[in-house]
Amino acid sequence: MAREPGSSVGESVTMGAERLEGWVGELLEAAGLVDEAAAVVAQSLVETNLRGIDSHGVLRVPIYIERLRAGLLNDDPEPFVVSEDGAVAVVDADGGPGQVAGYFATDLAVRLARAHGVGVVTVRGSSHYGAAGLYALRAAREGLLAISTTNAEPYVVPYGGSGPALGTNPIAFAAPSTDAIFVLDMATSQVAVGKVFLAREQGRAIPESWAVDERGAPTTDADEARWAVPLGGYKGYGLGLMVEILSGLLAGAGFTHSVGDMYNDFSRAQDVGHFFLVIDPERTVGRDAFADALERLLSELRANPPAPGFDAVLVAGDPELSTQSQRSRDGIPLPRSLFDTLSSLARELGVAVPATR
Amino acid sequence: MAREPGSSVGESVTMGAERLEGWVGELLEAAGLVDEAAAVVAQSLVETNLRGIDSHGVLRVPIYIERLRAGLLNDDPEPFVVSEDGAVAVVDADGGPGQVAGYFATDLAVRLARAHGVGVVTVRGSSHYGAAGLYALRAAREGLLAISTTNAEPYVVPYGGSGPALGTNPIAFAAPSTDAIFVLDMATSQVAVGKVFLAREQGRAIPESWAVDERGAPTTDADEARWAVPLGGYKGYGLGLMVEILSGLLAGAGFTHSVGDMYNDFSRAQDVGHFFLVIDPERTVGRDAFADALERLLSELRANPPAPGFDAVLVAGDPELSTQSQRSRDGIPLPRSLFDTLSSLARELGVAVPATR
Repeated sequence: MAREPGSSVGESVTMGAERLEGWVGELLEAAGLVDEAAAVVAQSLVETNLRGIDSHGVLRVPIYIERLRAGLLNDDPEPFVVSEDGAVAVVDADGGPGQVAGYFATDLAVRLARAHGVGVVTVRGSSHYGAAGLYALRAAREGLLAISTTNAEPYVVPYGGSGPALGTNPIAFAAPSTDAIFVLDMATSQVAVGKVFLAREQGRAIPESWAVDERGAPTTDADEARWAVPLGGYKGYGLGLMVEILSGLLAGAGFTHSVGDMYNDFSRAQDVGHFFLVIDPERTVGRDAFADALERLLSELRANPPAPGFDAVLVAGDPELSTQSQRSRDGIPLPRSLFDTLSSLARELGVAVPATR
Repeated sequence: MAREPGSSVGESVTMGAERLEGWVGELLEAAGLVDEAAAVVAQSLVETNLRGIDSHGVLRVPIYIERLRAGLLNDDPEPFVVSEDGAVAVVDADGGPGQVAGYFATDLAVRLARAHGVGVVTVRGSSHYGAAGLYALRAAREGLLAISTTNAEPYVVPYGGSGPALGTNPIAFAAPSTDAIFVLDMATSQVAVGKVFLAREQGRAIPESWAVDERGAPTTDADEARWAVPLGGYKGYGLGLMVEILSGLLAGAGFTHSVGDMYNDFSRAQDVGHFFLVIDPERTVGRDAFADALERLLSELRANPPAPGFDAVLVAGDPELSTQSQRSRDGIPLPRSLFDTLSSLARELGVAVPATR
């Protein structure tokens, strides 16, 4: 497959979340990103690591910095409202990091949902926005239900096809219950591209359902694997297409091959599109009744007798919550290779390398 | 698995769509359903057969009639607006067929989307509403984007669990392009329950990923298969849960085991919940620009070089459109066993049995 980082194998170093966030913010600022934007990106990446989603955490700092320095990521972005009409708004990301536009758009969707019961915000002219779940979670913390989706450069073949057409196009959904927040955050491809890289690095075979070779045929050879496949065949393909339509077309952003490849195309900005939907349950059953019902539903699911080979039935968001509590206490493990890369960047940019545990 | 009809094997009879729709309408009326509601249900079921989705077509007439006669489906339903607040409304289905409430709610969501740019309508107190795609399609015919979801009686185990917790909880999405309408309509379970019944009837083994036995272990023995599994494991489980939350909880309808089993529980009405979201692209990029962009995206996908073993890359809705055109011309094939069941019902209810081809 094309160049993209996988999770690394081998030893790791550990750093407290606060220290890591400070360091990442300094690195981004030193690379030219204005302080406010640097703080947003650093906070969102480290929150993602805290939740255990390392594939979308500070692993992305080197490529963000590379694109900032190449002038392909606006270092002084000011997302702005292109149009606001009823409960629907369009935002232009001003070519900055997706996280900056993502927080801006989420907050706008929350405001629209408070005013109208539901709010839709689409974003054009954006870049990689990290983990989709973060935006849904942000709205759910306000007592609201939220969906967020984004498109991305094509890495996934359509069902029955041999060439890449869609991004891994994730869907995130969050809803507040009495005790916690339900958060689903899933790519519409079968597996993340990084898992194939990891298998290649380790010389392992991959399951037949993970990837296809150059001709579009399923392969178990990680070296032959060229493109990712949609979740469960035609269903994941349909979901990926839905995400492409909501995030790219509805926003007037790039779609399929007009989205720039973050890792492999240094000739242009990405023009990624995002979609945010926020609904206020106060307009239907009431926030408290909704949160109570969700708590009952989730409790019932957790009480489902485990199948052979499973210890317990979980719900989406459970593993992330438990990782978050453990990593907030013990720090965030960084693969040694990533720490080394960040340290080299730090030296190059004149930023101090913080102590690790 | 519990009692539910599968697709039948063997010979079939063919009937023109118009004649079939008339017959089904007469049968439902003879079973007590008021004429307007009977016409809506007959139209939607036959349109579903026309589109080739036989599992959700007139195959359902016998159970609808059984529940009508048992007083578990209101035979004179008048869906009403419980609340309308900004761009969000709650509808009560008045215990009638889901199709009657579904059309009512879709039309309301369309009206809200026209007024506010986006509309959300949730429905409580409903029953099986047939194919989710029909409602999304109805809104897309007005030039709008739409999502529809419904919950259903629990037939699907949570990922890692052994007992049924969620329905097959479908997601439908439709969007208008210049030439046609993109329609995705998919269960969030790996396969429809009917496929397992069909394999059992034919004495065939089933793939390991389709179903679990009583303990929650994957089985390839169709006779041992007890419950369906979520699409692709934890992702489909998460999507099914999202649908349960949007359709059941947000509407104040039944959820998980409080949704009555249409085929096996004659002690109560179902209390199914539905969710409808409609967005007007006129508020973002404009309807024409949106339709043009979608046409370009779909053309690009159809031009993707097929993988080995495939003739062409399709997009969701393509197979249904081609079936619709063929069946509009040649008539709808009905399995002989289903035709016999409908004919017996007709004799019992004093309705004439129409000629077949």
